[in-house]
Amino acid sequence: MGSLVDVDLLTALRAAVGPDHVLVDRDVTESYRRDMMPLAPAGSPAAVVLPATTEEVQDVVRACGAAGVPIVPRGAGSGLSGAANAVDGCVVLALTRMDRIVEIDPDNRVAVVEPGVVNLDLRSAVEKHGLFYPPDPSSYDWCTIGGNLSTNAGGLCCVKYGVTTDSVLGLEVVLADGEVLRTGRRTVKGVAGYDLTRLFVGSEGTLGVITRATLALRPLPQAPATVVASFGSTGAAGVAVSRIVREGMVPSLLEIMDSVCVRAVERHLSTELGDGAGSAALVIGQSDLGRAAGLAEVSRLEQVCLDAGAEFTHHTDDLAEGRLLLAARRAVLPALETLGSWLTDDVCVPRTRIAELIAGCAEIGEEVGLTVAVTGHAGDGNMHPTIVYDASRADEAEAARVAFDRILALGLRLGGTVTGEHGVGKIKQDWLATEIGPVGLRAHRAIKNALDPGGLFNPGSMFRG
Amino acid sequence: MGSLVDVDLLTALRAAVGPDHVLVDRDVTESYRRDMMPLAPAGSPAAVVLPATTEEVQDVVRACGAAGVPIVPRGAGSGLSGAANAVDGCVVLALTRMDRIVEIDPDNRVAVVEPGVVNLDLRSAVEKHGLFYPPDPSSYDWCTIGGNLSTNAGGLCCVKYGVTTDSVLGLEVVLADGEVLRTGRRTVKGVAGYDLTRLFVGSEGTLGVITRATLALRPLPQAPATVVASFGSTGAAGVAVSRIVREGMVPSLLEIMDSVCVRAVERHLSTELGDGAGSAALVIGQSDLGRAAGLAEVSRLEQVCLDAGAEFTHHTDDLAEGRLLLAARRAVLPALETLGSWLTDDVCVPRTRIAELIAGCAEIGEEVGLTVAVTGHAGDGNMHPTIVYDASRADEAEAARVAFDRILALGLRLGGTVTGEHGVGKIKQDWLATEIGPVGLRAHRAIKNALDPGGLFNPGSMFRG
Repeated sequence: MGSLVDVDLLTALRAAVGPDHVLVDRDVTESYRRDMMPLAPAGSPAAVVLPATTEEVQDVVRACGAAGVPIVPRGAGSGLSGAANAVDGCVVLALTRMDRIVEIDPDNRVAVVEPGVVNLDLRSAVEKHGLFYPPDPSSYDWCTIGGNLSTNAGGLCCVKYGVTTDSVLGLEVVLADGEVLRTGRRTVKGVAGYDLTRLFVGSEGTLGVITRATLALRPLPQAPATVVASFGSTGAAGVAVSRIVREGMVPSLLEIMDSVCVRAVERHLSTELGDGAGSAALVIGQSDLGRAAGLAEVSRLEQVCLDAGAEFTHHTDDLAEGRLLLAARRAVLPALETLGSWLTDDVCVPRTRIAELIAGCAEIGEEVGLTVAVTGHAGDGNMHPTIVYDASRADEAEAARVAFDRILALGLRLGGTVTGEHGVGKIKQDWLATEIGPVGLRAHRAIKNALDPGGLFNPGSMFRG
Repeated sequence: MGSLVDVDLLTALRAAVGPDHVLVDRDVTESYRRDMMPLAPAGSPAAVVLPATTEEVQDVVRACGAAGVPIVPRGAGSGLSGAANAVDGCVVLALTRMDRIVEIDPDNRVAVVEPGVVNLDLRSAVEKHGLFYPPDPSSYDWCTIGGNLSTNAGGLCCVKYGVTTDSVLGLEVVLADGEVLRTGRRTVKGVAGYDLTRLFVGSEGTLGVITRATLALRPLPQAPATVVASFGSTGAAGVAVSRIVREGMVPSLLEIMDSVCVRAVERHLSTELGDGAGSAALVIGQSDLGRAAGLAEVSRLEQVCLDAGAEFTHHTDDLAEGRLLLAARRAVLPALETLGSWLTDDVCVPRTRIAELIAGCAEIGEEVGLTVAVTGHAGDGNMHPTIVYDASRADEAEAARVAFDRILALGLRLGGTVTGEHGVGKIKQDWLATEIGPVGLRAHRAIKNALDPGGLFNPGSMFRG
């Protein structure tokens, strides 16, 4: 197929980034159409542009602004909300070539990176200096820091170390008029002006293009000790999580898997989790306080689980064994994939309501006639109910979408939010409107309009214009 | 003197909050004119209004909006940037009557409070549940949570537990049109929409009136162990702080005092700090990891200080002794006050540059012929150079202002920010403009205009309209 892009714009884009870095062949651009959220709509981009520098991003933004062609920024495309999905006729701005770790300053525990750096590459690079970049979304081995910033990504570490925004000191952003905005600072504290840094983090590419980030690093934690507890009911597991929070414990990881996840993983890995008697819920915790203190903390976690009625528990400070236990948690999606397509949801509820959420998801599964498996970050209430369905059947796809929405309604009823870490993107705009209400939506539109009056960046994502 | 306020507006204000809570007597309103920053300009308010509910705030905002009379929100007035200072003819909106702790939810580690709650009252209330609200500005025994939110207040805890914004989950805000905006959530994670919560935190009352806040609480830390180290040079103390950061230690407190502070406190408290030989810099650290782990951590801090050349060190897990050592740090301002008026500045520099900042401040003091004493939060580079002068002498007041500005220029040269925790207010608008540049200023104005198009809230604060 021929090019969909205006000839003048094409010339300007080629001048901006070099002809090799403007892709217009439909066979190629199609692979930049969407992220990993199957239900979100995705249009066909007119072109995919891969800049190498901030100046090139500025030129692209100015060219698209002049042509009135919207820009959808994207990283690796690992997102789960369709925020990086193309709209028809847009320019997809793929930041993957801007992948330099510009600086690591161990003395001030700061790193400066470009948006295309892969999360794992940054983790590995700073680890050599005894430092730690906490945010660890499941896709950490291929997602980019730019995408993490745009979605304010979370991960398993959040229960102790917070989400992406908690590790960002400053940003460089190309605005809709092509100017470069520098937000924040290199110091660990600072209150000079509005917190624009955190306004851009999580804004899903709707306010500007992040071209550089100054990140706060932490000391590398100690090797973790691990505890696993198997419960006969989700209610008992929920009580355990509540008590862990209530008793003031801050483990470095606290995950939960319901019985559907446990059985799927057991089949997939040909192993037994728990005591083999069939676990209704599995809780996995870790402590990174270091040998004696770490063992003491996981022993406390274990005792709380036993007091809450755990039928089987096991703790270890053996690293390999700990990794195996965590591998079971990480195997949930691959295991569910053997059963069909999966559609993973993302709600965050108060930590006291986790058991109710799991029970409610099982009911929703029964109502729509599909399996809903629940796993998630118990320590902060961020659950990922995952619907298993046959994507080739229209009725099951429809039922999956119904279940997806009912889970969000349940999350809100339990005092939660419709997205804990995946974002709104092009799949939850109506749910965002429900959650934040008309005044909230008006404030969002006012800010969008203030920074991007022409609606250049990622139109229709997060909320409708 | 008679009332300065328009009769119709006065009627509306009295209808909104009741006649007893509208103050127009100049003798009374004068006491609401300013906060604790002596150099910031302060106008005369037409009225001071003390609402009791969110609905009353809405009515006041609508009445002032209709009358075109600006509103300056304020709490206790403990601020150090003039952000709460009145402008001529404004309505000062004092939130001190809205002082209810609405809810403490220990199971989810969340508190909901009104803005007039005194920081210490919240600390004490949650402590009864074994919980901890970290932000602890020096004025914690009289400043209000609303003021803390508006300025994104810090304190001694920040090195380990972050600043105010790190403890805020959600806000209720009355906007310029009188509507109530609810930002954020009760859950510990959430990415539904822009991070409006953190946009309002630190916005110094320029975007709306915060009427309620949902705050994240932490487990109450263990009783601290304390270490003090005395150095023969500020350079050696700076090296110690850098190494503490570099070696991945995260003490719960890490403060520094220069020789001027040490001598002033020694005189004021009639005691000897250090070994009596005359300390050039004193570093005080704490660990709240609990008995054995706490002692181990302060011993590590002590060893780093000795390796960096400390001439005298002492550590203790005796609580009373620890409190006495910390009392020396807290006595710096009262001690300096015995020498004259004080004007405290607030810069945050990379932690490797602290020694340079202290040396530079001494030079600036010599240049202007005044004493500049430096103390501050070494663990995060947030320093408070404090200028001692005779406020009754115009030449000294002028010299103090010159020193104040030169310290800010020095902070910027060292890669820092012009305010680490006190804010911009009505004293550093030009410095904010310098730090963030024209694009940053334009973004600030665009956001201000989006949320407060009539310039109703705190006009001229933070940046000029």
